[in-house]
Amino acid sequence: MKINSLLNRRDFNLTLLAALPTIALRLPQSGNSLRIDSQRINSHLSELAQFGKTAEGGTSRVAYSDLDLKAREFVMKLMRDAKLEVTVDAAGNIVGRRTGTDQSLKPLMIGSHIDSVPDGGSYDGQVGSMGAIEVAQTLADRNVKLRHPLEVVIFQNEEGGTVGSAAMARGLTEKDLSVVSNSKKTIREGIKFIGGDPDQVSRPLRKKGDLVAYVELHIEQGGSLYAEKIDIGVVEGIVGVYWWEVTVEGFANHAGTTPMNQRRDALLAAAKYIEAVNRVVTSIPGRQVGTVGKIQVFPNAFNVVPGRVNTSLGLRDLDEAKVQMMFEKIQAEVKQIESATGTKFEFKQVNSSKPALTDNRIRNAIDDSAKSLGFSTKLLPSGAGHDAQEIADLCPVGMIFVPSRDGISHSPREYSKPEEITNGANVLLQTVLKLDAEFV
Amino acid sequence: MKINSLLNRRDFNLTLLAALPTIALRLPQSGNSLRIDSQRINSHLSELAQFGKTAEGGTSRVAYSDLDLKAREFVMKLMRDAKLEVTVDAAGNIVGRRTGTDQSLKPLMIGSHIDSVPDGGSYDGQVGSMGAIEVAQTLADRNVKLRHPLEVVIFQNEEGGTVGSAAMARGLTEKDLSVVSNSKKTIREGIKFIGGDPDQVSRPLRKKGDLVAYVELHIEQGGSLYAEKIDIGVVEGIVGVYWWEVTVEGFANHAGTTPMNQRRDALLAAAKYIEAVNRVVTSIPGRQVGTVGKIQVFPNAFNVVPGRVNTSLGLRDLDEAKVQMMFEKIQAEVKQIESATGTKFEFKQVNSSKPALTDNRIRNAIDDSAKSLGFSTKLLPSGAGHDAQEIADLCPVGMIFVPSRDGISHSPREYSKPEEITNGANVLLQTVLKLDAEFV
Repeated sequence: MKINSLLNRRDFNLTLLAALPTIALRLPQSGNSLRIDSQRINSHLSELAQFGKTAEGGTSRVAYSDLDLKAREFVMKLMRDAKLEVTVDAAGNIVGRRTGTDQSLKPLMIGSHIDSVPDGGSYDGQVGSMGAIEVAQTLADRNVKLRHPLEVVIFQNEEGGTVGSAAMARGLTEKDLSVVSNSKKTIREGIKFIGGDPDQVSRPLRKKGDLVAYVELHIEQGGSLYAEKIDIGVVEGIVGVYWWEVTVEGFANHAGTTPMNQRRDALLAAAKYIEAVNRVVTSIPGRQVGTVGKIQVFPNAFNVVPGRVNTSLGLRDLDEAKVQMMFEKIQAEVKQIESATGTKFEFKQVNSSKPALTDNRIRNAIDDSAKSLGFSTKLLPSGAGHDAQEIADLCPVGMIFVPSRDGISHSPREYSKPEEITNGANVLLQTVLKLDAEFV
Repeated sequence: MKINSLLNRRDFNLTLLAALPTIALRLPQSGNSLRIDSQRINSHLSELAQFGKTAEGGTSRVAYSDLDLKAREFVMKLMRDAKLEVTVDAAGNIVGRRTGTDQSLKPLMIGSHIDSVPDGGSYDGQVGSMGAIEVAQTLADRNVKLRHPLEVVIFQNEEGGTVGSAAMARGLTEKDLSVVSNSKKTIREGIKFIGGDPDQVSRPLRKKGDLVAYVELHIEQGGSLYAEKIDIGVVEGIVGVYWWEVTVEGFANHAGTTPMNQRRDALLAAAKYIEAVNRVVTSIPGRQVGTVGKIQVFPNAFNVVPGRVNTSLGLRDLDEAKVQMMFEKIQAEVKQIESATGTKFEFKQVNSSKPALTDNRIRNAIDDSAKSLGFSTKLLPSGAGHDAQEIADLCPVGMIFVPSRDGISHSPREYSKPEEITNGANVLLQTVLKLDAEFV
């Protein structure tokens, strides 16, 4: 969005400046010659993937498992190598801190998570974690001083419901702590297991104003960047997720003897509903999604007209009002389906998370940084949940996406190219420099 | 269809004739004054319902259970009271025989079954069983001699797949005998339990030509007669039943990050298919039915775009060619759905039974008999399977339907009024008299 060509001419001077070990570097608004080490970050990513490597080439390293513990030790070693002062907070999040030059400023935070889903991939969370450490390592190597303290965070148990970041931003309830995680440990047991103190997490670990900004690098987990061959995604926000349990009551009857016009077929009604959801969601411009992922039919027999169906509805968008509008359109379709099929629908909202918008200045900083490095960019929503959406309660947040092959995630087939990871980490580095200069 | 008013004037004379105990009665083609005992047949039905009466007012008396055995003893007593010579054949079918006046003629057979589905009703099979015995009792009471021998049959285990009638018409295989029935006994064990000999059923118990005709009285198990307030249904035939297992392959993906236009949603494809089946089946004139009764989705989660669906298809009609035509139309729709949704369908035919048409002369005999008694009639298919469809391999068959409230069957809510049962049994009686006169 800005003209960077002029600034780029100063690259040579900046390289010289950066090479001087003890000078506090005041950075320009746009691209400079500071670059992360491509080989190092990709090696670290491979080394990390050894903890829980699966036969299919993915990673299975659920939070609070022995493998998680070993991977956390590996990460803490990398942080210490990067000259970060490492602590584990009460929730078990790993925080590596670097001092800033201005004592009056609150820290900039960057990071992600290293836990995976069962039989997951080696990129989700891990790219952003290695990226954040690489940024700190690069700053240390080049002796670049930032005005703000820098905190590199590895949130615990993101896949189990952004547990670590939720503890940081809003605290955990007793109910949260009693949830059994993929490791079979409760969250309470898990927090103890990784060195936290579950008795100290009922109140948020940080409060509003404790952080200047949070930026997270992540694979897209969707196919937009990959399909459109875009280098860097600038995340507009993390979509709100709204879920309903849906029941359809019809009347079970003999499939041989009940004439077509006397049926109250709950599965036929559900089929019309599933089509209607798709039609409503795709008839509106935008990137909203709507999914019917669950269905169960009773009595589920070849020769019985279905009497009841349990199904679901999931709607996601950055704009809560648009979700409400889609839900109302679906309700209007459902009314017609009810009268056409002699059935009755019920919707029960079971879960929802509000949209978390990213900060406009951080978006611009990411976009400018990417463009200054010669990358194509695209503004896009995150359809998946991330730690950044919890931290948005504490401070302005931003997210950088890199392409993910075929948009596949939570699978051993998850893959981003080494150069894409390098690109993302370089954009993170430049963004940190820019925010450090701009933010107070 | 014929003018019965003239014949009806002879009622008085016929009553006199029927009252004369030793005269062999040569019956006219249409209605006469011989009537079954309404109170007796309905009492017998109530008494039969005591064996396995449920709290909801239905009957749970699966084949080969202790209750089934007791009910069979009750039935055999009623047969002996009706002067029938009772035997149990090798398959365990109960046969009550009455001698005819012409030694050269093969028997007329009437009957049904007394076993029920688990938690079933007190009318399915039972009305026809009590009706057939009532006809024999009435003939005995009035000393009416028929030319043909009359056989009253109670087929065993109709609900488990017309087992007794299949044994009579085509024999049972070792595989048939090893099937576990609702009683938890195998068919082999069940046949022994009720006094048959499973080692003697590999070949059909009767052969083509052994019977002159078979007529079965039954509740409709559908709502046509009830809805249209018709007294008697004249069954055109028992529809062919064709079943397929259907699988839909799509691609499971993250419901948040996968844009709508990049999805290969197996459940959306299945929904379009379910609607297409309904559209194809209802767009053709006729009484054919098509049902999708089963569905299972994988992975069946709120937040995953469905990757695979297992579902079903059931088509029924009297005309095999029409079923084939509907299946082809559905296949054409499926091709379009596949290309619109990026999915792949597979159909695997798992079971089918061919249509069994009733005999035109028997249909006419039933229709004439009903009309001579002042009843309204309707020609209609049987959507449910019946023993008559097995026996159609041996001889001409016919079926008489009486109304079933709301078309509900296989349920404690199954109900036909006492007068409807009486009407049905009187039509059966008149039909027997007519066939005895007409058939050789």
